Amino acid sequence: MLRTHTCGELRIKNVNETVTISGWVQGVRDKGSLLWIDLRDRYGITQVTIETENADKQIIDTARSLGREFVISVTGKVAERYSKTDKIETGDIEITPDKIVILNAAITPPFTIEDETDGGDDIRMKYRYLDLRRNPVRKNLELRHRIAIETRNYLDKLNFLEVETPVLIKSTPEGARDFVVPSRMNQGEFYALPQSPQTFKQLLMVGGFDRYYQIVKCFRDEDLRADRQPEFTQIDCEMAFVEQEDILQTFEGLIRHLFKTVKGIDIPTLSRMTYADAMKFYGNDKPDIRFDMKFKPLTPKGETYGFPVFDNARLVVGICAKGAAEYTRKQLDELTEFVKRPQIGATGLVYARYNADATIKSSVDKFFNEEQLKHIASQMDAQPGDLILILAGEENKTRKALSELRLEMGTRLGLRDKNMFACHWVIDFPMLEWSEETSRFHAMHHPFTSPKPEDIAMLDTNPGAVRANAYDMVINGVEVGGGSIRIFNKQLQAKIFELLGFTKEDAQAQFGFLMNAFEFGAPPHGGLAFGFDRLCSLFGGADVIRDFIAFPKNNSGRDVMIDSPSPIAKDQLDELGIGLKK
Amino acid sequence: MLRTHTCGELRIKNVNETVTISGWVQGVRDKGSLLWIDLRDRYGITQVTIETENADKQIIDTARSLGREFVISVTGKVAERYSKTDKIETGDIEITPDKIVILNAAITPPFTIEDETDGGDDIRMKYRYLDLRRNPVRKNLELRHRIAIETRNYLDKLNFLEVETPVLIKSTPEGARDFVVPSRMNQGEFYALPQSPQTFKQLLMVGGFDRYYQIVKCFRDEDLRADRQPEFTQIDCEMAFVEQEDILQTFEGLIRHLFKTVKGIDIPTLSRMTYADAMKFYGNDKPDIRFDMKFKPLTPKGETYGFPVFDNARLVVGICAKGAAEYTRKQLDELTEFVKRPQIGATGLVYARYNADATIKSSVDKFFNEEQLKHIASQMDAQPGDLILILAGEENKTRKALSELRLEMGTRLGLRDKNMFACHWVIDFPMLEWSEETSRFHAMHHPFTSPKPEDIAMLDTNPGAVRANAYDMVINGVEVGGGSIRIFNKQLQAKIFELLGFTKEDAQAQFGFLMNAFEFGAPPHGGLAFGFDRLCSLFGGADVIRDFIAFPKNNSGRDVMIDSPSPIAKDQLDELGIGLKK
Repeated sequence: MLRTHTCGELRIKNVNETVTISGWVQGVRDKGSLLWIDLRDRYGITQVTIETENADKQIIDTARSLGREFVISVTGKVAERYSKTDKIETGDIEITPDKIVILNAAITPPFTIEDETDGGDDIRMKYRYLDLRRNPVRKNLELRHRIAIETRNYLDKLNFLEVETPVLIKSTPEGARDFVVPSRMNQGEFYALPQSPQTFKQLLMVGGFDRYYQIVKCFRDEDLRADRQPEFTQIDCEMAFVEQEDILQTFEGLIRHLFKTVKGIDIPTLSRMTYADAMKFYGNDKPDIRFDMKFKPLTPKGETYGFPVFDNARLVVGICAKGAAEYTRKQLDELTEFVKRPQIGATGLVYARYNADATIKSSVDKFFNEEQLKHIASQMDAQPGDLILILAGEENKTRKALSELRLEMGTRLGLRDKNMFACHWVIDFPMLEWSEETSRFHAMHHPFTSPKPEDIAMLDTNPGAVRANAYDMVINGVEVGGGSIRIFNKQLQAKIFELLGFTKEDAQAQFGFLMNAFEFGAPPHGGLAFGFDRLCSLFGGADVIRDFIAFPKNNSGRDVMIDSPSPIAKDQLDELGIGLKK
Repeated sequence: MLRTHTCGELRIKNVNETVTISGWVQGVRDKGSLLWIDLRDRYGITQVTIETENADKQIIDTARSLGREFVISVTGKVAERYSKTDKIETGDIEITPDKIVILNAAITPPFTIEDETDGGDDIRMKYRYLDLRRNPVRKNLELRHRIAIETRNYLDKLNFLEVETPVLIKSTPEGARDFVVPSRMNQGEFYALPQSPQTFKQLLMVGGFDRYYQIVKCFRDEDLRADRQPEFTQIDCEMAFVEQEDILQTFEGLIRHLFKTVKGIDIPTLSRMTYADAMKFYGNDKPDIRFDMKFKPLTPKGETYGFPVFDNARLVVGICAKGAAEYTRKQLDELTEFVKRPQIGATGLVYARYNADATIKSSVDKFFNEEQLKHIASQMDAQPGDLILILAGEENKTRKALSELRLEMGTRLGLRDKNMFACHWVIDFPMLEWSEETSRFHAMHHPFTSPKPEDIAMLDTNPGAVRANAYDMVINGVEVGGGSIRIFNKQLQAKIFELLGFTKEDAQAQFGFLMNAFEFGAPPHGGLAFGFDRLCSLFGGADVIRDFIAFPKNNSGRDVMIDSPSPIAKDQLDELGIGLKK
């Protein structure tokens, strides 16, 4: 070993020991009579101090030749520092070197290797191996490692088996966003990379595995939005002989275990909210409940509002921002601009300031008298000092817009602290959603999701009203996991495929092996999957999952470090039996 | 939960408790007055007993309607059995049912779900989800899970970080056996699936990660021999600031930890053998040292043997099979046939039986007198009762053939017990091997392997003689892991690429990002990878890795259960910008 200790472990108790440490030169300071080298490795930084008056010329020369990021090893005695620092954990000691060996020189890196770097995103992605040297990046990946280990420990104790499912699977027309892999040995045929191990984990349940999990790479070839990756990781789980309640308990337990062991935080029992309530109170199926600010519907005091915008709207709904009555005209204009942005899509914003002196000043004073405004304030549960914000219009669109406004207000009012964690379940999702685009029902979760037994009769009469045994875990307004109780009966599965517009032949061709498997004694089963990258970023208090992936791709799906994807040789294409379209 | 207990946990202490168990019907026996149901799940089998005289008619009817592999749940009282059995762990108790619920019916499976099944390989692969219900198959995967968990625990304690490296990487001409993945967003360009995360783990070392591991899927599109899979799993590891000795110690520790925790076996310190000795004494770079039977070279007593086959041979070498002098003519003929098979390729076998009465009877008595035979016996360290087997011919071919014969004799003499484990290191591999086919050197391990410092000078003068800091771990004659200390210097890496016939441009195009990374302060580093599937099969005492993979592919790379690979739709090809060659 080219060291006896890491750069993070020497303490006052080691004084007078002769040690060897190795690492990267963080910096050299030369004061003439004193020379300091800060030596860094994954574990910390240790200071090497040379008194030029007493030191060997060779050591001084070597030290003066060092540049940033040189890799060196230093052998010497641990000494107590004159001026101790508590900025680094080794701040009580320093090394008086007897020997410095340059293991590898380094050219100057294109950005500084410090917590706050001068490198932009692009350059740091190109030199990702240098970016990985920075503490914040490495700590993210250490956190990821720790979450993975604790996930496995928790599930292992509950008798879950980690089973690797195949990566080279079968493409299905459903899988419009499958990555495919041409087979050399079976020319003209393709494997597909899994978007999830869904069918395999269900087959493991049919195979009696009882409890399965896997931390597994999945793949989706879709146009990448800001924070999507073509390859991503899931904690994928499935259990047999369970009901929804068992799944909720088990994985609520996992999340609480992770918060406890990884972050030292006790998370209370997770509350549960139906999908219907989530939409009603937050306009969102993954509400951020770190703060309240629930939607309140508005009704006129008399027959009508006497305000055409409200009177002509399908829905008039508002939120009450506590203590925000002091908002300036400029701030209110910003909010109006915010809701009118095309991606939000509201036509305007009605606000009313419930002043501390109990007067109300609104943007619609022309239409409403004091009494009417008081009525509104009372419907909104507003108190003096609060700001009322109201949207009106078509129902779904208005809820969606108000949801965005609510989140914006939460952010502005500092109610969305990244170090606070509000975890809850959203349950009772609808089974199907109607697509205007394709004029048919789509599965809201996926086609293997079981309807609620009490709703099955409605499959024939009112499919859109059928609720599923499906659930999402939401943390701070982010859907970190979701799953369902599965169908385990061939006839019901066939019926659902039919509702989803599959012909019998299509269903058999694509999912025949699963439906056949159900005939051989499938147990009741269900499960869920967590988005592991997202979970890690939440634990890390960050927004961007890319920072929690060692070698991420950019928004065009490119790895700019290795320059991939890239063209391949013609004879390689020939051997695969494929050609490029002109 | 559709059970209070599993089918494997009820004991005499649970008698009189009311419980619910769920599982699959292993069988029903109907003796008229008594009806037994054996109910099976992953954890065991529990007997349900119905006394038809006292039982509810509905329970009797339900029980009589059950077929094999029906999924049921049984609620009832735990009772002590009259006739206990120790064949199953729940053999002291039985359940007297109050309720039997059929959760799912089952059609008759195509083979019996028993330890010894009547199903052939093909049918079991097609219905893999049923095969997984069989104890031996499930136990293999439980073993795999356990080895993975213990691997992680061991490495985590030593500060290794599990880091996920990308699956969508870059194809290189070196990677003639890369699976490629067309990119939809970057038409005409391809990702490749990794044959190993080699360059990424080296970049993690450059990035200061210090200790990395990953249990990771790798991919190779090669014609599959009996026991290869297109996707396979490695325990992939790398460490910085180490020398070869540190790697050997660390991973010897891992293997001993695994044997101890998973199998309860104490493995002694691993012995080490140079590649040169492995070839000299065993004709094989992964010798099975569960038994001795080392090669002994033969030299004539006088000037010549007086036996043309020996006199004309480059090498005359033999083994001594202890206690096998009683081998019959038929057995010896079998051995002769064995070595003459084309894949072994010897032209003949010379044997000499050193009888218990100290006479020697050989297949070449025509050419050798008693004294000469005694000379041979003494060179072979043979004792009365032993059988001497000798091959002669061209050096490498003869060693290889004798290696096969040695293993065959080991098997025949019962010296290769699957429950015995002989682990050792083979070290000091040559850096390069000459290929007659391409008339150039190839890397024996891979192009990133470091030469031994004391041999570097020979790179210019005698490259074939340069030894590498490369090592394999061998268990029972199987190479389970291998690795090397890496080059971490750009100039040396460039020189090796040149020796391997890369142009500067090719080397830069393919590995530029790695060589550039070396310029920014690469630490000395090295590592290794274990074949995880193979390691599991060794621990399981089995030969076939397929049995340790949940959903394996067959020898044509097909998954016959899901019927993959398969053709994909034309519009999917169009969208990817590729077409099929006619």
